[in-house]
Amino acid sequence: MRATTIHAPGDIRFEEVPDPTIEQPTDAVVKVVAGCICGSDLWPYRGHNDIDAGATIGHECVGVVEEVGADVKDFRPGDFVIVPFCHSDNTCPHCLAGVQSACQNGGFTASGQGEYARVTQADGSLVKTDGMPDASMIPSLLTLSDVFPTGWHAAVSAGVRPGGTAVVIGDGAVGLFGVLAASQLGAERVIAMSRHADRQAIARTFGATDVVAERGKEGGERIAELTGGVGADAVLECVGTDEAMKTAFAVARPGSTVGFVGVPHGVELPVRRMFQKNVGLAGGVAPVRRYLPDLLERVLSNAVDPGIVFDLTLPMSESPEGYRAMDERRATKVLLQP
Amino acid sequence: MRATTIHAPGDIRFEEVPDPTIEQPTDAVVKVVAGCICGSDLWPYRGHNDIDAGATIGHECVGVVEEVGADVKDFRPGDFVIVPFCHSDNTCPHCLAGVQSACQNGGFTASGQGEYARVTQADGSLVKTDGMPDASMIPSLLTLSDVFPTGWHAAVSAGVRPGGTAVVIGDGAVGLFGVLAASQLGAERVIAMSRHADRQAIARTFGATDVVAERGKEGGERIAELTGGVGADAVLECVGTDEAMKTAFAVARPGSTVGFVGVPHGVELPVRRMFQKNVGLAGGVAPVRRYLPDLLERVLSNAVDPGIVFDLTLPMSESPEGYRAMDERRATKVLLQP
Repeated sequence: MRATTIHAPGDIRFEEVPDPTIEQPTDAVVKVVAGCICGSDLWPYRGHNDIDAGATIGHECVGVVEEVGADVKDFRPGDFVIVPFCHSDNTCPHCLAGVQSACQNGGFTASGQGEYARVTQADGSLVKTDGMPDASMIPSLLTLSDVFPTGWHAAVSAGVRPGGTAVVIGDGAVGLFGVLAASQLGAERVIAMSRHADRQAIARTFGATDVVAERGKEGGERIAELTGGVGADAVLECVGTDEAMKTAFAVARPGSTVGFVGVPHGVELPVRRMFQKNVGLAGGVAPVRRYLPDLLERVLSNAVDPGIVFDLTLPMSESPEGYRAMDERRATKVLLQP
Repeated sequence: MRATTIHAPGDIRFEEVPDPTIEQPTDAVVKVVAGCICGSDLWPYRGHNDIDAGATIGHECVGVVEEVGADVKDFRPGDFVIVPFCHSDNTCPHCLAGVQSACQNGGFTASGQGEYARVTQADGSLVKTDGMPDASMIPSLLTLSDVFPTGWHAAVSAGVRPGGTAVVIGDGAVGLFGVLAASQLGAERVIAMSRHADRQAIARTFGATDVVAERGKEGGERIAELTGGVGADAVLECVGTDEAMKTAFAVARPGSTVGFVGVPHGVELPVRRMFQKNVGLAGGVAPVRRYLPDLLERVLSNAVDPGIVFDLTLPMSESPEGYRAMDERRATKVLLQP
């Protein structure tokens, strides 16, 4: 098959690689209908992560089941499925506790920007729709593979509750979904920190009541003003840098929690401040499967329209251009079609 | 008056200092009936904190109100009161959110190991008993000033719930109260990490179902065995060192929370592990006032007997010996009488 691969920082290719196959009886192989580029894919692209030269890249996709292993009971070829980027048996103690991203038998999608993807633990991971969805629904369904549940996880981890004030750090796709999640979970005030007009617009559509364009110290002062000097009831850290984390703790009110879902890079947590202010930290790799049934229902009922986050659609063969567009912030989120 | 002072690491004195006075109309001055030495007092004693040479030391006490400021409505001279080590107006947004330790108008007890102590925000801070308690109750009431609610805060912050497994790191007085709190909050299994026979005995009395004497890597392996490889549902970090924190995160199951109340010294939080395992951190300076009414009720009804943690009682004039005894681990917790 052909798939997107990474060879070095900045070196993305779309090329021939071995087909994924059923390796375990619990596996499925999915023919990708749509994949996309994640903000976290930019870490290796920008040289911040180690690279296994020539490896496939891409962990977000939806598609149609092509083949299943002998032990797969709930899916068969032809089913349209959402593929959580982290796979889970959904039966181990961690899955049962709602942390499917720490499944004792878990795995990850490795070729979501390719023509086919192998899903380990198909029964515990995949969620299917009734029949083939309308093409117009594909972008929204695709967000359920990672980015929407990840933003949701930030909000849940931050303890967003009806009536409170939530601050969202980061206006990438995950941050925008943090805004949507905080709004859906009933926050009365959702403050998006964003400097980009196009992303501010999506944030407003997703439910942001306020937008703060300032960053760092000035950003913190603006939040203090907006919250009467008290600070935010919940803070969603959706970037993963030390600066973003520091801003998060600076704007969190005592007793609140920073929910973090940005893969941490160079983050040094301010433990003294956390202690003195009683500000907690929670979150991590999103247990997508936990949130999927609820979020799928919200998508299918048109309660939300998450697909609008895709502002660039390309043929999968042009994935290198997709990476460039996201790296240069010409696109918020790039959808790839085989 | 005479009070305990610190001049340099290891240099504790009991000497004449100026009497505390009513400085603000919301103040009270309390005649100390009993004070005690806190594990956190050992940080400056051991040279790990800056010292203001000659300053009074000691933040835990109970006593009788001696004098009140003009704005104090709820207390009058003669009332027996428990003095939370951190004072709070109990009306500001942080207090109303249950984080009295971050009160916008807060303060701290500064001479709890002296004959008198000034309490700022008397109305919002103090809790009184009906009449003068029996002398036998004084030790238990004294624990309510800091150490018992602090252990309680660790358990609450860690999210201890009925039926689960809680691990308590640290067998100082705070850790022992973490054990008591976890047990009172319904944890089915309370695992105390302790190497000292006398402290293990108190831990058992306080409700520990298991004691793990191993530390570091071996300690983690023992907890893994005891939890079927899953890890603990809640972890209470009651020390404040990097080693203790690392152990806490090593034994916490994915999705759980480390509740921390040990003043952090040299702690570097394992943010990557926290992210990958979805293990959160919560806690900090205990909002004593929040828990006081409930804990006082438990003490007065004899549901708990926290006073047993005091294994050395000295005249206040011998406070230097009290520090030596705690520093050398000859005593778990030292009670001082004027």
